Amino acid sequence: MSDCIFCKIVNGEIPSKKVYEDENVLAFYDISPEAPVHVVVIPKQHIQSVNDLNEENLEIVSQIFKAINKIVIELGIADSGYRIVNNCGKDGGQTVNHLHFHLLGGRSLNWPPG
Amino acid sequence: MSDCIFCKIVNGEIPSKKVYEDENVLAFYDISPEAPVHVVVIPKQHIQSVNDLNEENLEIVSQIFKAINKIVIELGIADSGYRIVNNCGKDGGQTVNHLHFHLLGGRSLNWPPG
Repeated sequence: MSDCIFCKIVNGEIPSKKVYEDENVLAFYDISPEAPVHVVVIPKQHIQSVNDLNEENLEIVSQIFKAINKIVIELGIADSGYRIVNNCGKDGGQTVNHLHFHLLGGRSLNWPPG
Repeated sequence: MSDCIFCKIVNGEIPSKKVYEDENVLAFYDISPEAPVHVVVIPKQHIQSVNDLNEENLEIVSQIFKAINKIVIELGIADSGYRIVNNCGKDGGQTVNHLHFHLLGGRSLNWPPG
């Protein structure tokens, strides 16, 4: 997707402060952090949103959570705790149409979640 | 886990208003809804949190998101949008130590997510 900001981060056209990378998953610091730790975790493949998951690409979600397991240890928030947030569509507040998960930690997250 | 509230919901000891059920996943309405649609989606298997995902049980996350795909269509929020939230540990605000995902929709979710 030539006009997708996150695809451009994946291919290096747009710089990011990388936290984690493997064959299928990339994680980088959010440019507008809402917590001391605020990371965005994405599939390298362009998938628009949770609505666009299907039998063929569904496994990426488990791979993303596997990556998150490593990231929270690396960033020292596995024990203190964290929140994982996915926004889908307008009501969800999705601002980039490339599936992504916000990982927030380093402070006590409030309820409700937005 | 004999003292886990969500395990008791899975085995019917505690009643719930079910939204979706398959072999591995159960979804029910949150008893303290924070949005017009507020559903809790859980694995039937007792997994404490995202920290406790491993190679053997990791696939359940993709199965949960597959279920969410069906639920959002069923509940009419696929197009309007929604937010999926997982709380892990103290800072995340996890109140039940059984892996679960909050699915919220039917209103515009705010930012930050708590």
